[in-house]
Amino acid sequence: MKEIRIGLIGFGTVGKGLAQALLTQKERLIEKTDIIFTLATVADISTDTLPDEFSDVTLTKDADVIFTDPTINIVVELIGGMEPAKSFILKAIAHGKHVVTANKALLSVHGREIFKAAAEKNVEVGFEASVGGGIPVIKGLKEGLVANKINNIKGIMNGTANYILTQMTDHGTPFHEVLKEAQELGFAETDPTYDVEGIDTAHKLAILMTIAFGLHVHLDDISIEGISSIEPTDIDFAKNLGYRIKLLAISRNHGDHVEARVHPTMVPANHMLATINGAFNGIQFNGDTVGDVLLYGQGAGMMPTGSAVAADVVDIGRNIACNSVNRVPALSYLPDHIKEPTITPMDQLICPYYFRVTALDQPGVLSLITTIFGRYTISIKSMRQQEHDSNEPVFIVFMTHQATEGDVKKALEEIDALDVCTSPTVKIRLLIPE
Amino acid sequence: MKEIRIGLIGFGTVGKGLAQALLTQKERLIEKTDIIFTLATVADISTDTLPDEFSDVTLTKDADVIFTDPTINIVVELIGGMEPAKSFILKAIAHGKHVVTANKALLSVHGREIFKAAAEKNVEVGFEASVGGGIPVIKGLKEGLVANKINNIKGIMNGTANYILTQMTDHGTPFHEVLKEAQELGFAETDPTYDVEGIDTAHKLAILMTIAFGLHVHLDDISIEGISSIEPTDIDFAKNLGYRIKLLAISRNHGDHVEARVHPTMVPANHMLATINGAFNGIQFNGDTVGDVLLYGQGAGMMPTGSAVAADVVDIGRNIACNSVNRVPALSYLPDHIKEPTITPMDQLICPYYFRVTALDQPGVLSLITTIFGRYTISIKSMRQQEHDSNEPVFIVFMTHQATEGDVKKALEEIDALDVCTSPTVKIRLLIPE
Repeated sequence: MKEIRIGLIGFGTVGKGLAQALLTQKERLIEKTDIIFTLATVADISTDTLPDEFSDVTLTKDADVIFTDPTINIVVELIGGMEPAKSFILKAIAHGKHVVTANKALLSVHGREIFKAAAEKNVEVGFEASVGGGIPVIKGLKEGLVANKINNIKGIMNGTANYILTQMTDHGTPFHEVLKEAQELGFAETDPTYDVEGIDTAHKLAILMTIAFGLHVHLDDISIEGISSIEPTDIDFAKNLGYRIKLLAISRNHGDHVEARVHPTMVPANHMLATINGAFNGIQFNGDTVGDVLLYGQGAGMMPTGSAVAADVVDIGRNIACNSVNRVPALSYLPDHIKEPTITPMDQLICPYYFRVTALDQPGVLSLITTIFGRYTISIKSMRQQEHDSNEPVFIVFMTHQATEGDVKKALEEIDALDVCTSPTVKIRLLIPE
Repeated sequence: MKEIRIGLIGFGTVGKGLAQALLTQKERLIEKTDIIFTLATVADISTDTLPDEFSDVTLTKDADVIFTDPTINIVVELIGGMEPAKSFILKAIAHGKHVVTANKALLSVHGREIFKAAAEKNVEVGFEASVGGGIPVIKGLKEGLVANKINNIKGIMNGTANYILTQMTDHGTPFHEVLKEAQELGFAETDPTYDVEGIDTAHKLAILMTIAFGLHVHLDDISIEGISSIEPTDIDFAKNLGYRIKLLAISRNHGDHVEARVHPTMVPANHMLATINGAFNGIQFNGDTVGDVLLYGQGAGMMPTGSAVAADVVDIGRNIACNSVNRVPALSYLPDHIKEPTITPMDQLICPYYFRVTALDQPGVLSLITTIFGRYTISIKSMRQQEHDSNEPVFIVFMTHQATEGDVKKALEEIDALDVCTSPTVKIRLLIPE
């Protein structure tokens, strides 16, 4: 029976999950593949002993032990971040090792260099775990939807942000309170920036766009807005209007340009993406052949992510056993067919909008505001004004038909400059019906 | 560049979808695989000419033309039903051709014979399109969730039945009226038996159970109830109790036995499966590593199903090009590791129940009924009795805690035999919370 030997760099949460999965599933994997998958070596600078069940596994603080071990076939990088993860991966590739990683931050910035190096050494780079945790989203897209032109990607790709928005929606709690609770419960990091500011979601969108469209998409190509400024008031208005606010990654393929954006989005309450709550992820593709497909599950966590890493290890193991390495190109399209993207400038984005204007309750205010909208050809679909029982400023909520972001920005600047407007207008984009 | 040549048997809806997909995606598939996928021959007894865009394709009424063509690599069977589909597939295998089929009815009954023949000739049998239309559910399960013991499968696998239940739920329309509408709109067949009586769903469950659990599951192993007796009254009660009625395929793996059942099920309204409406499918797996994963999309139709067939064709094409045929075993587990199933007898099923008793509104009726429940240790969680303003019989609705089906059957027999009970009690199983 063939044996595939794995070197694991990083024995944190996901690393432990992978080790556990390989141990628990060992017999099952033999029954499915006729291959023994062995965790040979773990490299981790802050681990001094491995749990008893891994007594056969070599522990080292020096990753070079893994790169230079000729018996190791696959190097799994699970330390995250830029360096030394990048150097480790390139070194593993240089030593002719296949690589599996969950490192979306790294791939969305340095993916091009890494995949080029891997292609030159004819080794594989598996990254199923980089998007959607245990959900087989990369495999589903690359292989299950192979016979499709992907028209668009829409997804909830960060469980922490979705958990916070769900709590805010269900209990009306302000963002910072929910965040604090989530941190206490271990659902959010001490520094939550990547999760709540949409950066982690953008990492994942860059990876999905690359394989969905055959374009070299870089993190910098993506327009990013997070959820930290979302207020309970807007969640409430959204609910009353039949919407839920979700942090979505959205990319629509217009042929000669592609949208690439992460921002809070108002999603119709009956849309599948609106029903994905708590720490779950949901990623939807629209393909010209298949229509809409949505994949749902836990987007993070020790075992779900371990499941995806293990799936990559098995996939590569099968290719080693069958002599069919790079049977499926890493980025779905063959390297020569991956092009430079033209990203739709945000000012040219066309979508419907929600605006919450804060204004003094005086005669003629509505006329002042709607005159500005009219000047920028922003067509209003509906308007709601709060009942007023004091001299406090009131909220006026507008829902628009499709409008151009550049026009919207200029109109809101003018509106916010009005004497009667006492706070900046809140703007939330709507999911484009298609 | 390698060419893979395809012989298609059956130029009906899905056959046309595949032909269209191969044509539309030809360049894209080359960019992804470096392989030209060519539809070489179509065999169909009722087609006299092919559309102009397929002028290069040979048309025949004799499937033997395909089997005996040494240039054809893959035979796609899309005629459906038992015969001649079965003979065609076995003949293709005997001629050393790989096979792709969407024929769930055939595989759930004769799968064992077909997969054995294919293994002996070392050819592949792809069947992604047999479950969930274009949703990559088979690939997701076999490969994406490879490092998992699958604990359970729960799914909406028939779009027609789900469309009918959705219409009944949204508009309160009776089953037969919605069915008639659905037939007029082309959403339901002239003979809707397979769809509405749960048989088609059972075909699919048998296939999923086989690959999820490594068990030779046959259609006959599955307990089947359809939706034709579901009444708007029960849909209404379900809604008021916070549930939706869905036709679910359910299999739970208890280790030494597995549940295998298709029946209308009350699903909590906030469960993902309750939010899947219209003609869509949703299939959820629980794996010991990954937790819950749900895949959603169009479960039928010309192009979605064509997408899945094309994905299988590409998968096999890659294996031919890489010399890695049967790189992934057809049924996920290697043939020697697939076991005989022990199916949980329905009488031993344990789940919560909904009962709607129809009884005369007389003093002491409730006591008579609850005494019988008590005798069979069926614990009632809640009870609702309609307000009565006439001498008509009234509905008494019970929700139970977990109870054993065998006890439930006996209790309902006794209840229905009571003089005060004027119609058979309606029983609907609840989704087991887990």
